[in-house]
This record gives sequence, structure tokens and C-alpha cells, in this order.
Amino acid sequence: MPKISSKGQHMPASPIRKLTPFADKAKQAGKKVYHLNIGQPDIETPEGMLNAIKNVDFDVWAYTPSEGTLSYRTKLTEYYNKLGYNIAPQDIIVTVGGSEAITIAMMACLDPGDEVIIPEPFYANYNGFACESDIVVKPILSYIDNGFALPPISEFEKLITDKTKAIIICNPNNPTGYLYSKDELNALKELAIKYDLYIFSDEAYREFCYDGREFISPMHMDGIDDNVIVMDTVSKRYSACGARLGCMITKNKAVIAAGLKFAQARLSPGMVEQIAGEAAVDTPDSYFEKVNVEYTKRRDILVSALNKMDGVFCPNPGGAFYVVAKFPIDNADKFCQWMLESFEHNNQTVMMAPATGFYSTPGAGSNEVRMAYVLNATDLENAMECLEQALKVYPGRV
Amino acid sequence: MPKISSKGQHMPASPIRKLTPFADKAKQAGKKVYHLNIGQPDIETPEGMLNAIKNVDFDVWAYTPSEGTLSYRTKLTEYYNKLGYNIAPQDIIVTVGGSEAITIAMMACLDPGDEVIIPEPFYANYNGFACESDIVVKPILSYIDNGFALPPISEFEKLITDKTKAIIICNPNNPTGYLYSKDELNALKELAIKYDLYIFSDEAYREFCYDGREFISPMHMDGIDDNVIVMDTVSKRYSACGARLGCMITKNKAVIAAGLKFAQARLSPGMVEQIAGEAAVDTPDSYFEKVNVEYTKRRDILVSALNKMDGVFCPNPGGAFYVVAKFPIDNADKFCQWMLESFEHNNQTVMMAPATGFYSTPGAGSNEVRMAYVLNATDLENAMECLEQALKVYPGRV
Repeated sequence: MPKISSKGQHMPASPIRKLTPFADKAKQAGKKVYHLNIGQPDIETPEGMLNAIKNVDFDVWAYTPSEGTLSYRTKLTEYYNKLGYNIAPQDIIVTVGGSEAITIAMMACLDPGDEVIIPEPFYANYNGFACESDIVVKPILSYIDNGFALPPISEFEKLITDKTKAIIICNPNNPTGYLYSKDELNALKELAIKYDLYIFSDEAYREFCYDGREFISPMHMDGIDDNVIVMDTVSKRYSACGARLGCMITKNKAVIAAGLKFAQARLSPGMVEQIAGEAAVDTPDSYFEKVNVEYTKRRDILVSALNKMDGVFCPNPGGAFYVVAKFPIDNADKFCQWMLESFEHNNQTVMMAPATGFYSTPGAGSNEVRMAYVLNATDLENAMECLEQALKVYPGRV
Repeated sequence: MPKISSKGQHMPASPIRKLTPFADKAKQAGKKVYHLNIGQPDIETPEGMLNAIKNVDFDVWAYTPSEGTLSYRTKLTEYYNKLGYNIAPQDIIVTVGGSEAITIAMMACLDPGDEVIIPEPFYANYNGFACESDIVVKPILSYIDNGFALPPISEFEKLITDKTKAIIICNPNNPTGYLYSKDELNALKELAIKYDLYIFSDEAYREFCYDGREFISPMHMDGIDDNVIVMDTVSKRYSACGARLGCMITKNKAVIAAGLKFAQARLSPGMVEQIAGEAAVDTPDSYFEKVNVEYTKRRDILVSALNKMDGVFCPNPGGAFYVVAKFPIDNADKFCQWMLESFEHNNQTVMMAPATGFYSTPGAGSNEVRMAYVLNATDLENAMECLEQALKVYPGRV
């Protein structure tokens, strides 16, 4: 039998899905499982977007241009220029989800053996995509005690070698919910200029900033047009994860030209999705206002409940819809599995993602857990009650 | 300014799109351009598939499982088992187009530096995908004089090293239209067993076999279950190129397990597409019968017209909707560009793909051109008249 590749062997499994078999067993055993493990929002997709699907009108479901239709890219500039990005359609490559924006950006800018610095904990699939392209991830620890703020620039500088090509920030952050400040982004800007680095800005959660705080992108900053690559998706903005529609944005023409070759190899993004994505740009502000009120309420329920639990600490995040909390436990992987396998409270339990999967430093995050607040308030309250009871009886409590 | 990667520099541009700027200029100048360069069929997508899009009924456009919905994978087994593949839903990973089936298969089975043997001319994007993963393509020449039949197995054996991991066949072939025989596939089977190789079987054009000839897949053969990986797509079968819906099929459980990790990294294939793909399986046989009659007619028009032209040779292909023809010209790249830039007949011209882009051996195919017969009979006849006139006056005629 031919062997699989060593890449296939070493490709990391998804940390948010690896406990799925245990969740399935728990459900088969009749337990109700609250899913806080995955960022699949329960929020309704905007009506205009769903209607656009239902109203498609074509006879041939054809390829679109590899970079996306001009019509959709033009409409997207409306959305981005309202944010002050000052871009044109030719600065955009439409991608199959935010995932492909990340892989195209990585391949266009980094070669095998090149290094990318990422504050950790970080979105676990950066590891997977780096593995696919044989890119080396250099993690830089951020800490729960200051809410996972950007590590000091001096710590970044310690990691920089002649192989360092890029920094990835996810803002607001998945998994921590941290919203980077203007000062933090300015510090990254100076670093990028000093060492001639790309800033990959993953802005999947841009719309979700709370307490009146402002979202700042490296796209808002002068003098780094050639350094900044935005990786974006409609998945969270419009609760349309299954659309697989994203984009890569940069004013760096060489990166667009290289990226286009990777886009051409896979021929085309989806046609129906681009039609729906175009309609989505006209989603009224009231949709986002309502969603933000809802997420703020959920965040408050979760953070408040967690911090009331004995030995638990959870920072109050400024954005996204995740928290990372510290639990009085021996091992997050064991704890999350135990919750599914061995625990129930009123025949209910909670599925969470051990934070270890979001760190690449071995051992880091072993007493931390990521939760996505993608359930309604009542379910979240029930989930928190379950968790509180679980922590009281967990045999590995420390 | 940070530099792009050397991978980004060396990534091959798409041979079917690189003349697009010249075609655009020709159109701006008021010329009618017959597009024979790209495999975008004009055939209507089955009604059931289009209705499935219009009838979608969900409030949240959500992720599906990374391997595709169980419902779609189950329905797909109906289609494949009618063909005699004898597969189960767990042998399938649903992919974003056939493109992703190729990249996932490559990454799961080959490491950087590993080699894959491909009869050339071959589907140009294999080169691009190999470049992405730093896999080495070892081309093996097939020849227009015998209609691009499989080269002798002894030629394959000359190329085999300890780095050789796989053979790719595209059957029926893009770009040549060649349909491999049972004997040819049996020979490949013996080779795969002898050297412990994967057979990647790209079957995008399976439905398009002419003159009553039978399609044979390595999936029909005993004793190589662990060697065979099918890479498939709905793009051509249902004229649904813009759906970006494909799949990877293998009975090799280690490859499925590795492939799933790559699939998980990009989270999910499209949700609407899988719903439409499920409906597509119920497309009546009459749809395919009608389409095959149409393509056979077009092939006959094209092949007959070409072989009547002075100095032109075009084999009569058994499948797909492409031909590669030999022209009495100095250079196919120059000729195809000249057709767009400098030629017109009744204010019309033809866009074709120089075959050089489908060879990786330097200089090969320099007097060959690929044409896709994706236009109606009248347009094809007009295009052939244009081409005949063009060949008479082309300054680089030899």
C-alpha cells in the first residue's frame, strides 16, 4: 500500500472538531450538548442575501473570473471604502472563504522555510495552512492576565530572523476576543516598516466590536500600503459561514499579480455566492446594530457567569464572539473530553474547545478553554450552570 | 517593499487565460471573438439543479461538515455505484471544485520533492498545484500521431525513482480528448502495483464518451483499492462550473483520514452547492443523451473541418470536449496572439489555447493548439472558416 505523505501525517487535526466523536456519543446517550466549541453563529443570515440565492436567474452555472466578478468586487469597494480603506476593485481577489484568502496570501508572500510571527493563542488553522505550504509559525505568547493584549514589540524583535516575512494579527481576535488598539497597531506598523514585513490582517470579526469601541485596521494607516494584506470573509459578518466567500485585499500590486496566479489555478470562486455577496453589501445598519446588542448581551452573561465561578478567570473581550477563560483544572483537553463523556447536569453538558489547540508552544494554555457565545441567552445561562457544577466535581480540579 | 515569494514568481500563469487581454482588445475594436480557449460549456445546467438553488430553505447559511454533508455523500454513492465503483459515503470527501480534490490528494500523498508522472500534454493546472506544494512533475510525452494514446509502460518505468509517488491520468483527457482503453488502464494498474504508486484518476469528463465507447475507471479494477484516488467535479457533468463542487474518492482509509485534516483546515465546502449537487444526481438520462448527441455533432464538425485544412492534422478524440490539432505554423503562442491582434475575417476571429501551456517539456507542442467545442454548431462552423482563412495568410506559416 502506498504511504501517505509526512505532511498528511503531521497536518494538525482541527482542535474544535477533535472532540466531536465524544459529543456524538453523549447525544446518542440522550444528553443535551450545548455547543460552545465552534464559531457557527445562530444569527439569521440577512434576508437580502437569502433572497438573492432564491432569485438567481441564469441557465448556465458558469465560471466567474478567477479574481471574482467585476460587479461583486466593485460592490465590495462600497463596503470597504465606507470603512475608509480607499481601495479599488483591482485591489481585491475574491476567495473561497477567508480560508483561501489566508492560503493565497501565504503562498504569494512566503516560501517553504520562511517564518511568520503570530501572537498566540491564535486561530488554529493558521497552523494547518502553514503546514500545507511548509511555512514556519513562530508563536509569541500573549497572556490572559492582561486580556491577551499585544505582546511588547521587543518580544517580536527577539524572534525576527532573515527568514521572517510576515506577522499575522486577527482583529478582533479569535480565540481571545481581544480588540487591538490604535497604539498597538501603530507599533506593528513601525515594526513592519523597520524589518520590511507583511502584516496579514485577518478581519473576519470586524463587525463585532463592543462597548462603543472602534475597529482599527492596518488599512487605515499611511505608509504601509505595500505591507498590508487583509484576509476577510462574509462568514461571520452576515452569518453566512456556508457561503465560502471571502477576499484578499492589498494595494501591493505584485502580491495581487502573484495571488491571481494561485486564484487562476483553482479557476473560480463560486458564482451564486458572489451574487449573494453583492446583495449582502446592502444589508441595513439595523441588522448589525441588532446583532451587536445580542452578542453584547451574551458576552456579558458569559463573562459575568464565568468570573463568579470559584477559581475561574475570564477577561472581558472587546470584540468577536469568543472568550478564553482560565479554569482551576489540570488539563483542558481532559476536562473538555470528561465534560462530554462523564458529566451531566440535568442530563445536559457543554462542548468547549481546549485552548491548547490554539497555542503552538507546547504546554501553553493547558488550563484554558475557548468558548463561542453563539447560543441564545437562555441556552448560555444553562450552559454556564452546567459548567459551574462540572467544575465542582471534576476529578482533575486543582 | 517586502518581496513576493519565489513560489509566487514561478507559479505558472494559466495558459487558457494569458491571451485574455488581447481578446479584450479585439472585442473593444469591434471584432467578434469565438471562444474556443476555455472549457466553459454553453450547455444548460439541469433544471433540477437550478431549482434546488431557488428552493433553498434555511435561515442560517451554515458550515457543513468538512467532508461534506452525509446526505450529499450518500446521494453521491447512488451515482457512483451505478457506475460500479462500489463505494460508501465515508470513501468521499466533498471538495471545492475538482481543483481542491487535486490539491488535497496531492498534499495527502506527496511531500515536497516527491514526483508525480503525468502523460503530456496535460491539464495545465496540475503544474500550478504541484508548484503550490513543491511537488515535482515528471512529464511523459504522448504523441498526436497516435491520437495521444498512453505512452508505453517502459517509458514510465524509465522515469521512476524512489521519489515517484503517483501517476495522474485525466480520462477522457483534457486537453487531448483521448479516452483510455481497458488495456491501457490495466497496464497502469500493473505499474502501480509493481512500484507501489498512487493512481490519481481525474474523471471530470467521464460523462462525455462518444461513438458508443465505454468509460473505464481504475475504480473498476480489482486489487488496487488502496492505490486509486478519483478526483471529480460536477463542473462539466452538469455544466455547473461555477458551483465549485467536486469530490475526492478513495477506499484507502489512511488517505481519507489525512485528506480530512486538510479539508478541516478550510472548514467546509459550500452548503447551497451540496443541496444543488444532491438534486443533480436525479438528472434524467435523457439530459446526458441529448448533450452527448450535441457534443458528438460538434466534434464531428470541428475534426472534419480541421482535417480538410491544408497542413492541419486533428485526431478524432473519443471523449471530453477538446481537441488538440497540429497546424502548419512556426509557434502556437505567436499564432494564437496574432489571431486576436492582427487577424479578422468578416470582422471575426477565434481565441484558442496554445498547446505549449499543456506541456512541461520545453518546446513541446509548439505547433499544436487546443480547442474546446463549447459553442453551437453554427458558431463552430464560422470559427473554422475564420481559422482556415487565417492559416492561409499567417506570416509564420511553415
